[in-house]
Order: sequence, then structure tokens, then C-alpha cells
Amino acid sequence: MEAKEEDVKLGANKFSERQPIGTAAQSQDKDYKEPPPAPLFEPGELKSWSFYRAGIAEFVATFLFLYITVLTVMGVSKSSSKCATVGIQGIAWAFGGMIFALVYCTAGISGGHINPAVTFGLFLARKLSLTRALFYIVMQCLGAICGAGVVKGFQQGLYQANGGGANVVATGYTKGDGLGAEIIGTFILVYTVFSATDAKRNARDSHVPILAPLPIGFAVFLVHLATIPITGTGINPARSLGAAIIYNRDHAWDDHWIFWVGPFIGAALAALYHQVVIRAIPFKSKS
Amino acid sequence: MEAKEEDVKLGANKFSERQPIGTAAQSQDKDYKEPPPAPLFEPGELKSWSFYRAGIAEFVATFLFLYITVLTVMGVSKSSSKCATVGIQGIAWAFGGMIFALVYCTAGISGGHINPAVTFGLFLARKLSLTRALFYIVMQCLGAICGAGVVKGFQQGLYQANGGGANVVATGYTKGDGLGAEIIGTFILVYTVFSATDAKRNARDSHVPILAPLPIGFAVFLVHLATIPITGTGINPARSLGAAIIYNRDHAWDDHWIFWVGPFIGAALAALYHQVVIRAIPFKSKS
Amino acid sequence: MEAKEEDVKLGANKFSERQPIGTAAQSQDKDYKEPPPAPLFEPGELKSWSFYRAGIAEFVATFLFLYITVLTVMGVSKSSSKCATVGIQGIAWAFGGMIFALVYCTAGISGGHINPAVTFGLFLARKLSLTRALFYIVMQCLGAICGAGVVKGFQQGLYQANGGGANVVATGYTKGDGLGAEIIGTFILVYTVFSATDAKRNARDSHVPILAPLPIGFAVFLVHLATIPITGTGINPARSLGAAIIYNRDHAWDDHWIFWVGPFIGAALAALYHQVVIRAIPFKSKS
Amino acid sequence: MEAKEEDVKLGANKFSERQPIGTAAQSQDKDYKEPPPAPLFEPGELKSWSFYRAGIAEFVATFLFLYITVLTVMGVSKSSSKCATVGIQGIAWAFGGMIFALVYCTAGISGGHINPAVTFGLFLARKLSLTRALFYIVMQCLGAICGAGVVKGFQQGLYQANGGGANVVATGYTKGDGLGAEIIGTFILVYTVFSATDAKRNARDSHVPILAPLPIGFAVFLVHLATIPITGTGINPARSLGAAIIYNRDHAWDDHWIFWVGPFIGAALAALYHQVVIRAIPFKSKS
Repeated sequence: MEAKEEDVKLGANKFSERQPIGTAAQSQDKDYKEPPPAPLFEPGELKSWSFYRAGIAEFVATFLFLYITVLTVMGVSKSSSKCATVGIQGIAWAFGGMIFALVYCTAGISGGHINPAVTFGLFLARKLSLTRALFYIVMQCLGAICGAGVVKGFQQGLYQANGGGANVVATGYTKGDGLGAEIIGTFILVYTVFSATDAKRNARDSHVPILAPLPIGFAVFLVHLATIPITGTGINPARSLGAAIIYNRDHAWDDHWIFWVGPFIGAALAALYHQVVIRAIPFKSKS
Repeated sequence: MEAKEEDVKLGANKFSERQPIGTAAQSQDKDYKEPPPAPLFEPGELKSWSFYRAGIAEFVATFLFLYITVLTVMGVSKSSSKCATVGIQGIAWAFGGMIFALVYCTAGISGGHINPAVTFGLFLARKLSLTRALFYIVMQCLGAICGAGVVKGFQQGLYQANGGGANVVATGYTKGDGLGAEIIGTFILVYTVFSATDAKRNARDSHVPILAPLPIGFAVFLVHLATIPITGTGINPARSLGAAIIYNRDHAWDDHWIFWVGPFIGAALAALYHQVVIRAIPFKSKS
Repeated sequence: MEAKEEDVKLGANKFSERQPIGTAAQSQDKDYKEPPPAPLFEPGELKSWSFYRAGIAEFVATFLFLYITVLTVMGVSKSSSKCATVGIQGIAWAFGGMIFALVYCTAGISGGHINPAVTFGLFLARKLSLTRALFYIVMQCLGAICGAGVVKGFQQGLYQANGGGANVVATGYTKGDGLGAEIIGTFILVYTVFSATDAKRNARDSHVPILAPLPIGFAVFLVHLATIPITGTGINPARSLGAAIIYNRDHAWDDHWIFWVGPFIGAALAALYHQVVIRAIPFKSKS
Repeated sequence: MEAKEEDVKLGANKFSERQPIGTAAQSQDKDYKEPPPAPLFEPGELKSWSFYRAGIAEFVATFLFLYITVLTVMGVSKSSSKCATVGIQGIAWAFGGMIFALVYCTAGISGGHINPAVTFGLFLARKLSLTRALFYIVMQCLGAICGAGVVKGFQQGLYQANGGGANVVATGYTKGDGLGAEIIGTFILVYTVFSATDAKRNARDSHVPILAPLPIGFAVFLVHLATIPITGTGINPARSLGAAIIYNRDHAWDDHWIFWVGPFIGAALAALYHQVVIRAIPFKSKS
């Protein structure tokens, strides 16, 4: 039998929840059935066209993501007067806006990850198989490398002179600061992804997912507003890898591990928070 | 028996309302039933896991809110050229955008208050019990303190040198100006919360709540655009308290009462306006 | 009998429309009935509480609109370095964002006009009675005066020294330029209002009106981006009147007629365009 | 018989797709029927009022688009201090925001193209007849010319002195760079248009199209953020033509071909990507 929303009681609870703000659900539970966890390996999906199509969509989306964002970064960096550019705020919009648009476009094809940390977080929650997760991450990294490569192709000298959009810890901050900023930043992103796409919420209130790409894009925008001065903001290992490979200077590679370890820890914490606290799976009565 | 929308007449009114703009309702009233006011104490909810989960969600949301916003403020303050930062407008986006994203994420768990003034306003309208209101406010304040604390942890000297995001009345304005700005600013926010989440509107037009987090986030953004030059904009006592405790300088504490009294008065006025004028509860025929 | 959408033919048309983009309707027409035009005078509505409530809501909304926007203008004007403020773009966001939030909040109460030009346009299309239109315009103007007055109350000297947010035609532009800019700007706004709230669209696709406040707010934002350098952007006679009365200097009063004549012409043209071209009412077969 | 979503298998696929993020569909396929491709010539539509109404709507929308955007560009260009203007980011908002608002307003009338490249892409996918496509493109170009003309009318000297909003390849970039930027930029826009308005997605999840204008507008905004420093960003031949004709200087005409060839190639690639990869039409079993 399916457990209901309020099955996680510490004691007798005969009071229905009040939900004064927002998208809160109707009180009558639509018949909600949690999908079973994805198996680690689904050999069958390797024979499905939609599996490869999803990979191509992730590749193209990450390609376009790096292309637009790194090009925006270049436009701002190369100008001596930041006032004559879209500014640092414009860079934050480029990152967040692209995620909004691309998640909207690819959600129905691949789930719209465009970020190995998101794929990792959803894999930990068993929303997709290991096969698919690895395939996505490879395609995302390839797309990111190509996207940054095209930007370098426009103006090679300028690209190298202005840091190539690669993530490094800024002067005045320790590597620990950078790691912390990446962990919390990715936590915010992956927590938003989980909240916006919670299948249970989905079942209760069928209108919510429409807007899902918007808060996800905003989360990326907001983390950039706060942490561009610290690390340039990674929270997406594919984005960091693509820029690092195309830029390919020692000082970028020195900090590179931070932009894999930080996002993966942040994503894991978000998955943990969502599964243990918000969904309370450990305490769930197996009725 | 349930009173209908148009029961509040000054005389015979056989004319249905015309609603030329926007989300206006269909004329046929779905059967709407106003929920009874929340009791002051609901001992039962103290035994429900969802009560504590809601508190944890408020803590985490307020933590993330302060972390991102104060970090953004620091990034702007420490730079001598504001053009090389996200700017004051970027700060306003950080505050408003975080509220949008966090209300979206936590609305289904705790109602998405993230602000003692919102909790207070909704409590006055009897949307939640006193127990819950106090619990939320405590959790919000704790989250805010931790969020500001993490930002200070990154660069302690810089944090103290740049005001730590604490709210103070700017030179050239009186304390009365600051109080007035906080009252009207919080009125706008809480009025938007009431309008966006009106249960009656909800019942008539089931699609409205989807967007609720967006106008709420925008309200926060807009008040920041206008009042950052006056008080730095509080309209959220937890945010003001968290920054004040971590910054902990006399001149911040001197004005601190303004950022509790102002928001609470503004929230009370918004609750009054919504209940007395918009919902017209005093005149309602008790049929 | 009700005429159908495609009744306006120049000849035999057996081809259904293709609607490749966006919110296009399902092909099966829901039974749509156009509401009859509002009478000029509806004595009955004068006895309805909801009539006065709507007026109060327009007053409060226009009050808050002027308060936030003029305060934002003051914050930008008084600073010698625009980089240390929210900037001209921030002013545009304040105007557009407030309209978005306030239309969202008041749409269900008063229709969410907050602008005599919008009220005038909707009156021309017979969406509300003359009584109601006049009442709204008076309340909007009173609200605007109070809103600007509160801002002046904060810092009287500063307010007068920085133009008080009053609309004037900028040096280098003729009065004709200013009038033209107001006409086209208001056309864009009122055209968006008509498109977003078209009752026919409403009936065919019940989800559209949710977003109506968003494009309306954006229209205001966009017109400000373009015409702030020309007139400071009125497109709302109440906003122009409120600022002019509180500022009360000759050079503001000299141009003031432009900010009534321009918006009213623009609104009339938008109503004409919508009724004659888009809805094609003159050609409609009276079957 | 109609082929189902998962008909495109490389082998036996008994696994339903998991769609962890976003607007993903319910698993039960609503009965979806792909509309037949539009014929090249539909003589009947020439006799329909709605055909001409659509053309007028495209004319008016492109007129307003050029008016607001070129006026915004002028306001920024004429000022020596970009900080006292809405800035380059404000220009990007003007372009993207207008597309959002105008697509929202005209989607139900003409499909909301406002861009010959979009019309061309949708024509390639056989979403509209050749007759209609040509008619739209002519009306868009006429509207663009008039819109830019009105802006020039305000201040002729200033208009000519500041480049008139015409697209040229910036110093330091080759014509190949400009062409590449236009191709990828238009690809992003038309890919978003296809994704947001996919009829199949439409049928499965009837709520998605509401938001379609938003990602489309954002796509335009984002491409401007990235490529204004390279070409001023065309990705819309009507916009480029209108500005070029009204500005009418040799150096603008020299690069003009780029702003037709680039967008048309980009649109064709997006149509190809959508039809071949995303919709997988070539592999589709003709059951």
C-alpha cells in the first residue's frame, strides 16, 4: 500500500497541515505512487533511441550553455570600463538565463540536467540509472569543451589574455573558502532541482512543474551574484572542465579539483537533505 | 452556511462584477469554504513530524537567504568601483530572487515564510497557530545568524570593514524616516503575500497560486530598489538580527529596534487591510 | 446566435488557422459568449461594497506605485555616481516590477488598472461603466499624490533639488517628440493589456490569464528603457499628476498636458486597433 | 495509425522513460495527432480575413519591436557615460523583453514570429505555407523599416551619429566570426521556439505553452548578452534590414548579407536538429 503524505508522525496526528503560502496542495490526496528507484544498470535503455537522443540533447545544451556564457564573460573581461559592457550582473544573467531556457527546452528529452552535479544528485536519489548518469556526464563534458572551444576560436589572444572563463579561487580567498562556496552554491542549485521536480508535489499539484525551469535558472543566477568574486562560480563541473581544457594554463588546473569535489559534495548534501528531511524516507512507515 | 463573494453589499446589488484584467475569476463560484481560524495552541501538531520538518525547512531557507544575500552585499561593498561588481541592483536581485526561489521550494513544506514579519502577519490573520508562529520565528532567526556567520567566516576583516550587511539608517535620514520606510516596505511585501495566497482566490481560480512566489519575490526586489539608500532595507527581522549579531557593532545595535518594530507594524497593517477592506470580514453577513 | 472566431471572412474559408507558436488555442471552440458592453451608468453598482472596495484598492495600489518608483528615482538622482545606485535600468525595473506585482494583487478586486490611461482604454472598449471609470481615475490620482507626498516627506530639500520624479520633456527634444513618445509608449502598454486579457482568448485557453500581469509589467519596463531619456516616461497620467503636484514647479507644469493627451491618445489607438483589427468587430457578421 | 512517442527504437525497448526534471509528461499518452505538413500554397487562406489580420499583427509587432529597441540603443549610445543610461544590459533586456511581450500578444493572431528567421525555420518544418511565410516576411520588414524610421524622426543628427542601431561586425572580429555568431545565436532562438511550441509536448502536457513566450524572450536576451560586442546582435533579418535602410551608410550595407545568411542558416540548422534528432522523423516507423 502507498504511504500518504502525513504518514511520518512522531505520534498521533489528527490535524491536517495548514499551508498558508503558495503552491500548497489541495487537501484531497490524488492517488500518488512513488516511482521505484532506478536500477543501477538498465541494459534495455542502451537499445533505445531516446537514450542516445537524450545524450545528444545534453551535449547540445551544454555546448550552447558554455558558448553563450563564456562569450559573455569575454565581452565583459576584455573591456577596461565595465560600464560599457553588460557587467558582472550580466554574466550572472547569462549563466542563470541559459539554464532556465535550456532546462525548459530539454526537460522533456533528457530531463534537462546540463550539469554533472545535477546528474550526480539525481543519481544518488536513484532517479536515473548509473549507465545513464555516466553517459550524461560524458556528453556534458564534451559539449562544454566544444562550447568553450568555439569562443576561443573567435579571438584566441583575447581569450587567453582574459582568463578564458576558467574557474579559479580569487586572490584573498583560501582554497577552503572556494570549496565551501562551491559546496553551498551547488547545494542551493540541487536543492531547488529536487524541490521543483518532486514527484510527490507533482502528483498533488499538477501545475507546479511548469515553472520548474524558472526557479532552477534563478538559483544559478543567484549563486553567481554571490560567488563570482570568490571563484568565478562553478557549481557545474562540466562548465569548469570545458573552460579549463580550452584555457589550459597551470593556475587554472591547480584549483580544478575544487570544482569537481565541491559540486559533488553539495549535490550529495542536497540529495540527503531532500530524501532524509523533506521526504523523510528513513522514518517512513512501511505500511 | 458559507457567505458568497458578493455578500458584502451596501444595498441591493444584482449586478455581477466585471473583471476586465487579469486573473479574474469565472463567474460561477466554485463551492468555496473558508478554513476556520487556526487555534492559538495546537498541542497535536507538536507530535507531528511535519511540524518539525517545517521548522527545519524555515531554518535552512533563512540560512541560505542570508548566506547568498550578505555575500552579494560583501562583494559589492568591498570593491572601490561599483561598476566592476553586480552593483546595488544586483543586491536587490539577490534579496528578491532568493525569496522567489526559496518560497517556491519551501511553500509545500512550511508555507515558505522565511521572514518573521510574514509569519506575524499570517498569524494575525489566524492562518497558523501561535505555537507554530513562535517556532518558525525562532528557526528563522537561528538560520539567519548561521547564514551571516558563514559569510563572516570567509573573510572576517573584510566583513567587519564593510558593515557586514547590517541594517542601519543612512546619514541624512532620521530614525522616523527609517521606521516609515520599513513599515511601508513590509506592508508591500505582506500585502502581496496575502493577495497571492488568498484562499478565496484560490478556490475560484485554481491556477493562480502557481505564480505566487514570483510576485512575492518581486515585492522584495522592488522594496530593495527603493529603500537600500535609506536603511539598507530590512523588512525581515530575522535578516536584520542575523547580520546585527554577527557584525555586532554599537551603531548597528542602536537602530536595531527599527527593524523589528517597523516590519511588525507593516505586517499588521497589511493583515488589517486585507481582512477589513479586501475581504471585508467585519461587514460580512453572518448568514 | 454567437458569432465564431473565424466568422470574419473575406470569402469562403474552409481552412482552420494554424497557430505554430505559443499559447494558441485548441481547435475545438469552447462555447464562448462575449459579455455585453458595460452601460455608461450603472446606478446599482454605487450601492455595492465591491465598487468602493475596488476604488480603495486602486487608491492603495497607485499610492504604493508612486511611493516605490519615485523613491527609487530619488535614490538614483541624488547620487553623483550612478554606478553606486540601482541605475536608470533599476528605475525601469521599479516601474515595470511594481505594475507586475500590483496588477497581480488587485486584478481580482478592481481589475488592476492603476493607470487612468488603462481605465480610459478599457472604458472605450466598454469593459466598464463611465461611473466606474471616473471613480477609478479620481482614486488613482489621489493615490498618486499621496505616494509622491510621502517620498517628499522623507527629504524635502533633496526631493525638490532632484526633480521630484516629475515628467518633463528633456533638453534636445521638442514637445512633439515627447507627445509622440507618450502616444506610442501608452499604445504598447494598453495593447498588451487588451491582448493579455482578451475575454475570447480567455474562453478558448483558460490558462493564459495567469501570466497576464507579467507581460503587462514588462511592457511598462520596456517603455521606460526606451523613453526615460526623452520624457522620463509617463504613460500614466496619475503618476505624472502626482509627481507634478508634489513637485509643483513651473517647468514641470508647462509640459504637463503632454502626459494626459499623449497617454489618452495612445490608449484610444490601442483600443481601436484591438477592436477593429484584432477582434474585427465592425466586420463581424451579426448572425 | 499514429506513431507513439517511443516508437523510435534501436531495439526492443520495454522501459518507459524516466523524466526527473521539469515539465515532463504524464506517462499516459493523450491521444496525440501530428498535424499534416502545411501545403506550399493555400489559395484559400488568401480569402480569409484572419490571414491579413495576421500580417497586420506581424507588421505592428515588428514596428513596435524596432521602435523600442532602437530607441533604447540610441539612449545608451548618445551618452558619454554608460553608467547614466540603462547600459548594454538594458539594451539586451529591451530586445528580449519586447520579444517576450510581443510573442505573448500576437501568438494567438499570427503565431508571433516577428522575425523572418523564425518564419523561415517554421516554414522548413512545414508549419505554415510558403504564401504565408513570404507575406509575414514582407510585413515584418515593412514594420521594421517604419519602426526605425520613427526613431530617426525624433533626432536625425543623433541617430546618424550613433550608428542608428544598425548591425555591423565590430573591429577586431572577422566577417567569419560575425557569421558564426549569427548562425549559433539564431540556432539558439529557433531551437527554443521549436522546443517551446512542440505540438507533441503540447498534447502531452497542456500547460507548457503558457510559458512559451518567456523562454523565447530569454533566448533573445541571452544571445544579446553574448554577441552585442561582436555584431550588435542581429538574429533577426527584419531588425537588421530596418535599421540598415533607415541608417543607410556604406559600412552598414557592407556587412548586411551576414544578417540574412547567418540567421537563415541558423534557423535551418535548428529546424534540422529538431526534426531529425529531437523528433527523429527520418527513423520513425511508418506504421
